[in-house]
Amino acid sequence: MSDHSLPGDARFFTRMGPFPASRLAEAADAEIVAGSAAPVDVLFRGVAPLQSATAQDISFLDNRRYLPLLGETRAGAVVLGQAFRDQIPPHAIGLVCKSPYLAWARVASLFHPVTPARPGIHPSAVVGADVSIAPDVEVGPFAVIGDRVVIGAGTAISAHAVIGDGVRIGERCRIGAHVAASHALIGHRVTLYSGARIGQDGFGFAVGPAGFESVPQLGRVVIEDDVEIGANATIDRGSMRDTVIGAGSRIDNLVQIGHNAQLGRCCIVVSQAGISGSTELGDYVTIAAQAGLIGHIKIGDKARIGAQCGVMSDVEAGADVIGSPAMPFREFFRNVAVLRKLARRPDKPSSEADKAAG
Amino acid sequence: MSDHSLPGDARFFTRMGPFPASRLAEAADAEIVAGSAAPVDVLFRGVAPLQSATAQDISFLDNRRYLPLLGETRAGAVVLGQAFRDQIPPHAIGLVCKSPYLAWARVASLFHPVTPARPGIHPSAVVGADVSIAPDVEVGPFAVIGDRVVIGAGTAISAHAVIGDGVRIGERCRIGAHVAASHALIGHRVTLYSGARIGQDGFGFAVGPAGFESVPQLGRVVIEDDVEIGANATIDRGSMRDTVIGAGSRIDNLVQIGHNAQLGRCCIVVSQAGISGSTELGDYVTIAAQAGLIGHIKIGDKARIGAQCGVMSDVEAGADVIGSPAMPFREFFRNVAVLRKLARRPDKPSSEADKAAG
Amino acid sequence: MSDHSLPGDARFFTRMGPFPASRLAEAADAEIVAGSAAPVDVLFRGVAPLQSATAQDISFLDNRRYLPLLGETRAGAVVLGQAFRDQIPPHAIGLVCKSPYLAWARVASLFHPVTPARPGIHPSAVVGADVSIAPDVEVGPFAVIGDRVVIGAGTAISAHAVIGDGVRIGERCRIGAHVAASHALIGHRVTLYSGARIGQDGFGFAVGPAGFESVPQLGRVVIEDDVEIGANATIDRGSMRDTVIGAGSRIDNLVQIGHNAQLGRCCIVVSQAGISGSTELGDYVTIAAQAGLIGHIKIGDKARIGAQCGVMSDVEAGADVIGSPAMPFREFFRNVAVLRKLARRPDKPSSEADKAAG
Repeated sequence: MSDHSLPGDARFFTRMGPFPASRLAEAADAEIVAGSAAPVDVLFRGVAPLQSATAQDISFLDNRRYLPLLGETRAGAVVLGQAFRDQIPPHAIGLVCKSPYLAWARVASLFHPVTPARPGIHPSAVVGADVSIAPDVEVGPFAVIGDRVVIGAGTAISAHAVIGDGVRIGERCRIGAHVAASHALIGHRVTLYSGARIGQDGFGFAVGPAGFESVPQLGRVVIEDDVEIGANATIDRGSMRDTVIGAGSRIDNLVQIGHNAQLGRCCIVVSQAGISGSTELGDYVTIAAQAGLIGHIKIGDKARIGAQCGVMSDVEAGADVIGSPAMPFREFFRNVAVLRKLARRPDKPSSEADKAAG
Repeated sequence: MSDHSLPGDARFFTRMGPFPASRLAEAADAEIVAGSAAPVDVLFRGVAPLQSATAQDISFLDNRRYLPLLGETRAGAVVLGQAFRDQIPPHAIGLVCKSPYLAWARVASLFHPVTPARPGIHPSAVVGADVSIAPDVEVGPFAVIGDRVVIGAGTAISAHAVIGDGVRIGERCRIGAHVAASHALIGHRVTLYSGARIGQDGFGFAVGPAGFESVPQLGRVVIEDDVEIGANATIDRGSMRDTVIGAGSRIDNLVQIGHNAQLGRCCIVVSQAGISGSTELGDYVTIAAQAGLIGHIKIGDKARIGAQCGVMSDVEAGADVIGSPAMPFREFFRNVAVLRKLARRPDKPSSEADKAAG
Repeated sequence: MSDHSLPGDARFFTRMGPFPASRLAEAADAEIVAGSAAPVDVLFRGVAPLQSATAQDISFLDNRRYLPLLGETRAGAVVLGQAFRDQIPPHAIGLVCKSPYLAWARVASLFHPVTPARPGIHPSAVVGADVSIAPDVEVGPFAVIGDRVVIGAGTAISAHAVIGDGVRIGERCRIGAHVAASHALIGHRVTLYSGARIGQDGFGFAVGPAGFESVPQLGRVVIEDDVEIGANATIDRGSMRDTVIGAGSRIDNLVQIGHNAQLGRCCIVVSQAGISGSTELGDYVTIAAQAGLIGHIKIGDKARIGAQCGVMSDVEAGADVIGSPAMPFREFFRNVAVLRKLARRPDKPSSEADKAAG
């Protein structure tokens, strides 16, 4: 296997191991089910897709669609669910578990762990007065750390990040290149990807006699523990209260979150979605890509907002909505079907429309 | 009150004052209407929402929805409109005015003014040849100022900004961290938020025998006075003429403005909206979030384009449009209602559709 | 002509020339058709629009809409197509060609060529170990080049770019200010505009007992030759395979491309569009502005996806789709027309809807 092969090209990823099946099973919280002809004492060297895995690789099956690949794979081990335990190839070891995708995440992390912070402040970094930076923090080239900044143990601040005066960052965070964060209180194990903008003024202004006048934005951004914020995403600080991103939430690239917005725990906001000012999300809310929510509304726990959805009013807990304006999934697709039917006959569209209109 | 309390956490905001009611009334251009039991000679220390304000705070009521909070507040003073002047609590002073939100902006700015530029060029900054930088300009760490750049008095260039050769920036501007600006003429009192990209090549190419060939983009970006451009917004320079952002306009985060686009005075473009090349906006046009305008169209003065609207043709002055394709607000919501009605009966959707189709 | 006049303001653009008509015709691959009163031996000094061109300028006509301007222009030469060859003004020289826009691109590039890289590594740049950087590469101020990075001849890395460990960049590339690129293999003649984010983790996580757990993203981003990526665009690296941007493709500002996405040759993705994970595009696919594609679908060669389109399933080669959900262009506009007809009568919308509903 070339050092440059996928996945885990050695130019870009660390690689641990090799590991015996028992160690992988432990990581995966899985039962070992050996195929009839499976060799003992294999040391596994890496992860790979079913198509390209070798006898020293461990692979993965989660989706029934890819079941045919299981029969053909040369992988030495496969992580899979109970439903597929009878289909483990003779030469392979099955790691049978309840949550194969989670198990896979853990096995892959065993081989390719996140690089730990490299303690030390790069000599080119500019660090302000009265900071409190834990001894094992990494601060990259050209990072700018303002006055009174607090940074917890194990955190890595990448090259070119700009951390404003007074910002607090917890332990084991990853702050990406070119991040700008100001007016922010950031919890533990938070990841901000490259180019994320945290804490700038919200979009607030009053109409004055000579044009718009900015309304001071006097709140903060509070990012709770275990949050990830995608590349080039923007999160404005609150005006009078805080903008809050609840613990465990995942925000994708290019998402916009307006001032005073409140996200509960474990919300998912997919790429290019936007949440306007003062809107509140419960826990476990999912906002799909390119959806937009107007301001001052409430989205209940576990609601799911479809891609490109335009949400103009409150959404109940557990609801699935899509469309612009938002409506229940079933209603949306019924509308689509009805309209298609009405418009179908291409030969005489206008007479059809006349009839339809009564 | 803790130094870390909201709004105006002292870690992040300067705080001026205290001020007597007369000073606040002057800033607000308001009449003082004292409640029957209001103490005299209070010195106000800050701003706060009605719910958390103390006797030393001034608060604000603009929206009738929050009227119940007025009866319960402990605020020592409240900015409000004429409509609420009879409901000022006995212990409070009312600052009664015509434009409460504008008055609020000014009162809050009195307590928490924008930090002025800190004159001086950081020793790490790289400054080109033949520049003209006013003596009181602030240039932050690692900023890169190209050759022949002109920067007016009172302007602050934040850390990591990159200002291209020949760019002109007026007086009292705020250029955020990680801004890149090239091929641009920037007026006075302009704010560019973190990560804004100004002046890169527009998206223009011709089809050549071996693929696309770029068409030189030979115009500039002209940003007139008092404009604000949001975080991570992108404004391409013109191809043969200029891209122009008219005086007083406010552009939100993640907005895209294509080459040769022309915005008039005091336009508002909300987050994630996009304006394609060569499209022209009049004055006081509002483009709501995630709306998209195709190229080469004209939007009349004071037109309002709704959220997620897709505008494919000219829009008249004063029109309100929404939907994709854009249509008048009333028509859009009538369409939504009609389609909902047609599709309603969930038991037998197809037969209904048949009937509807005639 | 002022040095500051448009197009080609000398503060921002280099200017070559003057050139005789023969040199321009050669660049344009055009036939010279001189007007009856056209002077000989003019040396042309620049390009300009028909409205403002002088006798020393060359201008351009591609669109019949602007034909009236041809009669009025004072331009000394005009690039135009065969259809307009009889309408060349008497005082002008026509450069008649098959592809006027392409010819224009080349003529304009002759006067205003892209500035070549200025060889040398700025003393402030931080360069890692074991790099291979061609001698004529330009590395700007504060650039950070990781370990083992390879950069080909003629490439320019702008100020503040951050190139991660192991990244390969080919020849004659332009890497803009504040670009972050990691886990990436970049071909020749690639342009990454300011703020583009290449190679960060895709949006992948599993549900664990205590919240979401990240799935290691072990692929790369492969950017083939002659690709351009717009300002603040984001391209995630693959999870198990690569994210691939095919040769010659043009990606506009603020576009999001998810992990494992595959773009063929010469695809066009316009501003603010999003392509979700594992979706595959053929060659010459066009995705218009703000369109969104869900994951795991296939778009055939030369398909065209309209602005704001929401694509939820495969699209055939050559198809033109628009709407959300996507449908053929004709169907979409028929739907719009039918619905408008149904909803029209504003006086009695509900009774109409009743009738329409049968």
